Amino acid sequence: MKIPAGFMTSSTACGIKKRGKRDLALFFSEVPAVCAGTFTTNRLKAGSVIACMRNIKHGCARAIVVNSGNANALTGKEGIKKAERIINAFAEMLGVKREEVLIASTGVIGVPLPDEKIIRSGKYLIDTLSRSSEAFMNSATAIMTTDSYPKIADREVKVRNKTFRILALAKGAGMINPSMATMLCFVLTDLIISRDSLRTILKRAVNLSFNRITVDGDMSTNDTVIAMANGMSEVEGKEAERAFELNLKEILEELALSIVKDGEGSTRIFKVVVEEAKNEKEAEKIARCVGNSLLVKTMVYGGEPNFGRIMAAVGASGIPLDIFKIALEVNGKLVVKDGKLILKNLKTIKGDFVEFRIKLKRGKSSFWVLASDITEDYVKLNAGYMT
Amino acid sequence: MKIPAGFMTSSTACGIKKRGKRDLALFFSEVPAVCAGTFTTNRLKAGSVIACMRNIKHGCARAIVVNSGNANALTGKEGIKKAERIINAFAEMLGVKREEVLIASTGVIGVPLPDEKIIRSGKYLIDTLSRSSEAFMNSATAIMTTDSYPKIADREVKVRNKTFRILALAKGAGMINPSMATMLCFVLTDLIISRDSLRTILKRAVNLSFNRITVDGDMSTNDTVIAMANGMSEVEGKEAERAFELNLKEILEELALSIVKDGEGSTRIFKVVVEEAKNEKEAEKIARCVGNSLLVKTMVYGGEPNFGRIMAAVGASGIPLDIFKIALEVNGKLVVKDGKLILKNLKTIKGDFVEFRIKLKRGKSSFWVLASDITEDYVKLNAGYMT
Repeated sequence: MKIPAGFMTSSTACGIKKRGKRDLALFFSEVPAVCAGTFTTNRLKAGSVIACMRNIKHGCARAIVVNSGNANALTGKEGIKKAERIINAFAEMLGVKREEVLIASTGVIGVPLPDEKIIRSGKYLIDTLSRSSEAFMNSATAIMTTDSYPKIADREVKVRNKTFRILALAKGAGMINPSMATMLCFVLTDLIISRDSLRTILKRAVNLSFNRITVDGDMSTNDTVIAMANGMSEVEGKEAERAFELNLKEILEELALSIVKDGEGSTRIFKVVVEEAKNEKEAEKIARCVGNSLLVKTMVYGGEPNFGRIMAAVGASGIPLDIFKIALEVNGKLVVKDGKLILKNLKTIKGDFVEFRIKLKRGKSSFWVLASDITEDYVKLNAGYMT
Repeated sequence: MKIPAGFMTSSTACGIKKRGKRDLALFFSEVPAVCAGTFTTNRLKAGSVIACMRNIKHGCARAIVVNSGNANALTGKEGIKKAERIINAFAEMLGVKREEVLIASTGVIGVPLPDEKIIRSGKYLIDTLSRSSEAFMNSATAIMTTDSYPKIADREVKVRNKTFRILALAKGAGMINPSMATMLCFVLTDLIISRDSLRTILKRAVNLSFNRITVDGDMSTNDTVIAMANGMSEVEGKEAERAFELNLKEILEELALSIVKDGEGSTRIFKVVVEEAKNEKEAEKIARCVGNSLLVKTMVYGGEPNFGRIMAAVGASGIPLDIFKIALEVNGKLVVKDGKLILKNLKTIKGDFVEFRIKLKRGKSSFWVLASDITEDYVKLNAGYMT
């Protein structure tokens, strides 16, 4: 594992999850790090998200405290106070400023966060901070909820014989029984970069990865992506930043795909590409409309080629399309031409990936999303019949 | 059954559906009737919808030809021509004007409509036109797709000792294997009413009924509601129109509820009421967001009270809410207050109906929708595993 210089982590089971499962992780940088984040746009933001957003504005961070098993959402203003209590306690124990401690939570909604359990574990977490791959793997496990595997991606990047590293840990967007889970991702790098550049690059990379995946169309209360750059590689400059952006995009794409694949009960992934749109906004609207359509998701699961459902989802997007100009390709084969289904090409959908390419003949813009199918297991999981 | 004066119907199995099932119905008025309609807003409109919308503009109709088993959608411009061919043939056989024949189709998408089968059955349909309840019941069956029962509602309305009648036949909005079905409704009345009044009243009644139900959030290519008023009751006037509107709303509500209850694989209905919104538009947006949320639908199915999912769907609506002011009542019991879950009131959801009332504290507007839950059977049906 390529662990950036100066970063350490530790994790434990503080008692939020049952059966002694890991549910708490700490990420720490030996020196102050530039930081940036992107957060859920849901109006119902978890207390931890609100507290984290306040601190991240400060632009400089030393630590991230992450708990799983409890989202600290729908807990009223008390939820914010609890997050702040945790932040203050860890700042004191670590000997850093309050604003330098970030926080993220994931798990059930509407249950008061046992902040005292988290604070009580602080000393142990700090005492066991480690640079080992095992420690980072344990932390990737500690932030999981319904994920069936930990999600880590890393890179060692060479620029003019100098080296910097990027390590990212994520957890899934699939939804969880008995309440709701979330998507979390933490990016650590030892590159020297300005706060503004980090923010811009992170935003672009997130837009091309996590913002393009859909499991069930529901938006979490806790989605959080945080990046910390502590500069300890001593690599800097425009060329290094370009290399950072390129690699960050790859890493986040990798993690996003891993999240979709691990979507609850999912058996098959599909990509919806909308091309020849008037602008990116309408291409995005149509792509999301298709990617979130229950009828499309069940069709992908069943494998029956009812491509009319894709066209109906395109038509339902609200964009004033000329339906008699639209073409649809499935895995590169033309299936709909001029708004008419060409029946003879229809075949069962096979394999674990299928691509739908929709051509609108309206312009030159395009957009794509990655989506997972919907299965009986998804319903069972979310109805609470599998625990 | 209260059959309005002057209306007749007939139905047959013309060979679109397999195993000799009824798949074609004709509704006929002995005298020209004022007509109005509301249609799907999906850009991918079926050929039959486009042809019907053209004729209904004429404002006067004598007949409606309805087939099931084939939606005549995604069939290119040929689909419109086929619908017109059917209209022309029936107009000639019935001895009425082309513009006086309306058409509706429902069933699989992307398969060319066998218009010749429909036209060939025209003479038989006309020869067997009947005013009997049995004939109307058979026609209600002939327009079914995945519906498990025919949907009819009727009223006899007295106004100052005079009587007029309303009869409405509908079919379900649930989605169908191997492609997509649709919502159809035909309203027949012998009231004397102007075209403008009929149009206004129909629109209002549809907005309060069919436009408030959601099974899977997908929008059909064929949704059609047609009303015909032939004036043969000789009842007229403002008072009669008011009574008509009142009764029409009741009838369409009754049919809408019947459609949701018959949603594919559905076990439980839920009503989402949004109150204290700034305006009706934002109340509607939130109500639809909650009614269409997969996580809410699976929660209602499972019966586990994960009400955070409702709040998360409210927050995801994009309305700039103050989450710390929101209240949620479940079946009249306060569950969330000031954005905080009150845990002690949580119980399993039981019975076949549950009401969620969301209070925003932003204003005085409200909106509601009726929705069905999502089950493993919905997934099975739409994945093509049950036929």
